[in-house]
Amino acid sequence: MSRYAPVNFPAVKLEGKFWHERLETVLTRTIPSQHKKLAEYTILDSIKLPSPPPPLRFPRHPNGFTVQVFWDSDVGKWIEAASYALAHRRDEDIEAKIEAIVDDLEKAQADDGYLNCWYLGREPEKRWTNLRDNHEMYNAGHLLEGAVAYFQVTGRRRFLEVMERYLDHIYSQFGTEPGKRRGYDGHEEIELAVMKLYYLTGDKKHLDFVTYMINERGRQPHYFDIERQAREAGEGKQPYVFSNYEYSQSHKPVREQDKVVGHAVRAMYLYTAMADLAAEIDDPDLKHACQVLWDDVMETKMYVTAGLGPSAQNEGFTHDFDLPNQTAYAETCASVALIFWAQRMLHLDLDGKYADILELAMFNGALSGLSRDGEHYFYANPLESDGTPTRWDWHTCPCCTMNVSRLVASVGGYFVSTADDGVAFHLYGGIATDAEIAGTKVALREVSTYPWSGDIKIHVDPASPAAFDVKLRIPGWSSGAKVSVNGQAVDISKTVNGYLTINRTWAKGDVVSLDLPMPAVRLYAHPGVIMDAGRVALKRGPLVYCIEEVDNPGGRVQRLKLPRSAELQAETRADLFDGVVTLKAKALAIKEGDWKTLYRTTPPADDTATLTALPYYLWANRGQGSMMVWVPEVQ
Amino acid sequence: MSRYAPVNFPAVKLEGKFWHERLETVLTRTIPSQHKKLAEYTILDSIKLPSPPPPLRFPRHPNGFTVQVFWDSDVGKWIEAASYALAHRRDEDIEAKIEAIVDDLEKAQADDGYLNCWYLGREPEKRWTNLRDNHEMYNAGHLLEGAVAYFQVTGRRRFLEVMERYLDHIYSQFGTEPGKRRGYDGHEEIELAVMKLYYLTGDKKHLDFVTYMINERGRQPHYFDIERQAREAGEGKQPYVFSNYEYSQSHKPVREQDKVVGHAVRAMYLYTAMADLAAEIDDPDLKHACQVLWDDVMETKMYVTAGLGPSAQNEGFTHDFDLPNQTAYAETCASVALIFWAQRMLHLDLDGKYADILELAMFNGALSGLSRDGEHYFYANPLESDGTPTRWDWHTCPCCTMNVSRLVASVGGYFVSTADDGVAFHLYGGIATDAEIAGTKVALREVSTYPWSGDIKIHVDPASPAAFDVKLRIPGWSSGAKVSVNGQAVDISKTVNGYLTINRTWAKGDVVSLDLPMPAVRLYAHPGVIMDAGRVALKRGPLVYCIEEVDNPGGRVQRLKLPRSAELQAETRADLFDGVVTLKAKALAIKEGDWKTLYRTTPPADDTATLTALPYYLWANRGQGSMMVWVPEVQ
Repeated sequence: MSRYAPVNFPAVKLEGKFWHERLETVLTRTIPSQHKKLAEYTILDSIKLPSPPPPLRFPRHPNGFTVQVFWDSDVGKWIEAASYALAHRRDEDIEAKIEAIVDDLEKAQADDGYLNCWYLGREPEKRWTNLRDNHEMYNAGHLLEGAVAYFQVTGRRRFLEVMERYLDHIYSQFGTEPGKRRGYDGHEEIELAVMKLYYLTGDKKHLDFVTYMINERGRQPHYFDIERQAREAGEGKQPYVFSNYEYSQSHKPVREQDKVVGHAVRAMYLYTAMADLAAEIDDPDLKHACQVLWDDVMETKMYVTAGLGPSAQNEGFTHDFDLPNQTAYAETCASVALIFWAQRMLHLDLDGKYADILELAMFNGALSGLSRDGEHYFYANPLESDGTPTRWDWHTCPCCTMNVSRLVASVGGYFVSTADDGVAFHLYGGIATDAEIAGTKVALREVSTYPWSGDIKIHVDPASPAAFDVKLRIPGWSSGAKVSVNGQAVDISKTVNGYLTINRTWAKGDVVSLDLPMPAVRLYAHPGVIMDAGRVALKRGPLVYCIEEVDNPGGRVQRLKLPRSAELQAETRADLFDGVVTLKAKALAIKEGDWKTLYRTTPPADDTATLTALPYYLWANRGQGSMMVWVPEVQ
Repeated sequence: MSRYAPVNFPAVKLEGKFWHERLETVLTRTIPSQHKKLAEYTILDSIKLPSPPPPLRFPRHPNGFTVQVFWDSDVGKWIEAASYALAHRRDEDIEAKIEAIVDDLEKAQADDGYLNCWYLGREPEKRWTNLRDNHEMYNAGHLLEGAVAYFQVTGRRRFLEVMERYLDHIYSQFGTEPGKRRGYDGHEEIELAVMKLYYLTGDKKHLDFVTYMINERGRQPHYFDIERQAREAGEGKQPYVFSNYEYSQSHKPVREQDKVVGHAVRAMYLYTAMADLAAEIDDPDLKHACQVLWDDVMETKMYVTAGLGPSAQNEGFTHDFDLPNQTAYAETCASVALIFWAQRMLHLDLDGKYADILELAMFNGALSGLSRDGEHYFYANPLESDGTPTRWDWHTCPCCTMNVSRLVASVGGYFVSTADDGVAFHLYGGIATDAEIAGTKVALREVSTYPWSGDIKIHVDPASPAAFDVKLRIPGWSSGAKVSVNGQAVDISKTVNGYLTINRTWAKGDVVSLDLPMPAVRLYAHPGVIMDAGRVALKRGPLVYCIEEVDNPGGRVQRLKLPRSAELQAETRADLFDGVVTLKAKALAIKEGDWKTLYRTTPPADDTATLTALPYYLWANRGQGSMMVWVPEVQ
């Protein structure tokens, strides 16, 4: 099979209403308001060196840690998100703000290329002494992603050159060569960032560095032990931020890892880079490890919303089937990072099972992290609420805020991939792009109101007639899909690994019709997920639904029960969020009645009720109230 | 109505198998093993002053706190529990161990009477500077309870005198008089302890101190503010262990409190002392506050097991109806302390509603804290488990271990109360005692296998015929109770506030028969308790049941569902724990079947199954496994 590569997002025009609205909100509200928050929280002051850094806003925890050590990454992520936004519409004000940051970073950079504002400003003598806890390479990775994005969109090289100098410094310090330390970061990120620079420049030194980093992780003697012993020789016994190596996926060499463990975002960033590298150096063992880890997540550890990591304690994974709903951590960043990983896996094999999860995370666990107004966030994304959680306008650790904005600002990049001899559609929702396929320029336009409807038209307009593949993803959630080309039915049974390949000679005016029926369905969880026993989740197309108190007045939604036989009716609601499809069903509701005590022997009576469900990603945009994804089912 | 007062436990002989077994276990296993643990954890070393105290075993938290500041209380509680045990059977070895501790305490005591081993050993200059966090008076209270118990059982005054000197010192420091500080402890406890000393000595200074403490709590300017400012003047800004005054029920004066808040054990100890004082100084406002707080707990905040405090975060209360099962904190100490409070409330009004809760807590939320072998404990008592929690053989903060042992060792004291003209039976289970009623010596013997059966015989044998009341508690959970005297039926409809009064002239050989039918029943929770919606708890008599994996093999118990129509069959099982009554029902079990994915659209099938339930207090005595109190119900 030809190798498919994603059409990068600047080349993809988002015409569909769903993503166009999200993108506009991010451009006009999220990016500017995030810059204000970076200023307000003195994060922008922290990179103005050599002036003294601002006072510690978040004092060090007794374990020695403060979130301020990763403020550089927030700056990098904002530049990355803002740059993606600029690709859609240039903006002088935003560009000036980025340039000002680059000025500061350039000034801050040490003569030897080192550039970490925490260490430069506060404890320059301690640089590279605590990779385990202090995110030094992680920060470099995020700055680098920002620099790559800014260069790609504006062609301005200055920030990129700053970062290339910094990387040269890093490469001079770490590696297997004599005189170098065999270190790697406790928080993976730099690996996937450097892969981006490698794709941009083709300079093999970058690939070599990532290869070194992936190979070194988890080896014995353990670098974090060596490093800790060195610190303790100087400073005496030191506390751990987190006292096991599973937390940072460094408990064993990555090719030997077969269970997903530890901090969820770290895990996803690592696996993303592993998949990148497996493709690039054609390493079957590394690819196999990625596949085994993928299956482990899918079979035992993912919320139905594509949320990952049930536990706040380690911001990550616990044991198989442990997926509590109300206390779900399911960090926004983890679902965003799952999208990165899924995209890499998809391009290893062009298997729709990866695109299914990419889409699931996109529309649910990731998108839920951003409010409708574009200025409020969820860090944790629970699947049930008693009404207490609300969206934040910022967060002590603002990682999620800019992870979701950079995702939305670059969402076009996930829709289409091309190869020499074909084009593959992964996502639907209304996009237009031009591609070079089989030596011909082809205008592609996919028109739909997806995810609200599965009625999709794809216009394939080659400059001149040309034979190539058009591959359509037939989502794993769909059943009874129909495809036709210019009105002529195509045999859907020829779908392989979730993609239907149509090979023909395409000519101007050709239209592919894809009809994905979208009945609302009930989902049941594996009985191992004891929290969901006797419960049902509702889904329509790629959207997971929830029931919110505001749509189901009369008390907390947890009183509702859905009969198995109740018909689920989709209803287009133009009055809600500028047009959404809700689900309605006849249900039962526990009658509060007249209780004098907490417990009694008479069961509460049931009222009949109408259950109204809303796409999960939209919850908590209309004030506080109870919410539930997994609804008790009665037969 | 005559004032009823409890017959103290040394006068009550536990003849029934249920409590006799628990008591023997505590005497022979719990008390000795706890002394070993006190030694092993260097708690006994910490009171050996002026020798240097042992090294910090539990380093100070960054907020400045270490659990070691309340090690004195553990010593006090052990002496209290051990003394109660001695009342049943004197033991030279235990007495020698207590005497050795008293030697140490006497040596440690400062010339001015002060006696807190943490401060004396480590920071003598800081005594009385942090009542908010450091449990100084709380420790004094527990030592005092130990001293009172030891004196009552052995007649030895030495420890009591040590504590009386210490109290005189405390009284000289705190109060409303000029020159004294208006302090009180962040952790209530000394109030109820000093009430015991008042009952023992009749010395009004003790009552005055408790009156001051209860009146002062929560007044403005707030003592904890004043104290903190004084500390900060000397040492700079200081962290809070817990940054609100609800935590310690000092957010407003106690008579104005109408919602139960904060740390559950603190709350219960406070309310116990409030009820004591309300009775003693005849204060209707204080009594009213107790009643309002009682109703708040009962209507919105108590687990069906009489567990209290859902949250580990504040070891206490959150909002109304927040009663999560798997994460329930429900500290053993809190249920023990609820028993104390319920006993005081019961004696304010002789209302069976208090005895119902006393009994519920005794047989469920408190007793569950102690293992069958008497040497393992639960600190938290969840109502559902995925199989992870296990009983501990000790705890960083061993408060619960000795709370449950002192309860069991003194359980006889909760059975019977007497007044000048009558006797009231609150609990059943086989006891014998002699009492002076209506000027006559009366031998009383209650014979039953309660809680396994409600067939109860009470032998009333006055030395000579005498007219007096025999009051029988007719439990709130019972229905269809029958009472007869010497075979003559008594009209049960004359039961008032949960007590049936039989007034007659009693003569030797009189036998009262009480028949409490004990069908297994289903309990339903108030719909506000969203965690229990669609679920049912099983109860028989005073015992709440749970289903454990060991009795329901085939996977985690969370797969089980109980049809509403299924008959609940009580079954006496001589093979289990030396004889218990289990419950059996025909049920359904979700079939694990062949799942390839975490989620699917086909519902899992159900198998038929037999559900076997065991009394909750016995769970986790046969290895690890899943457990559930609230079982999903299907109709």
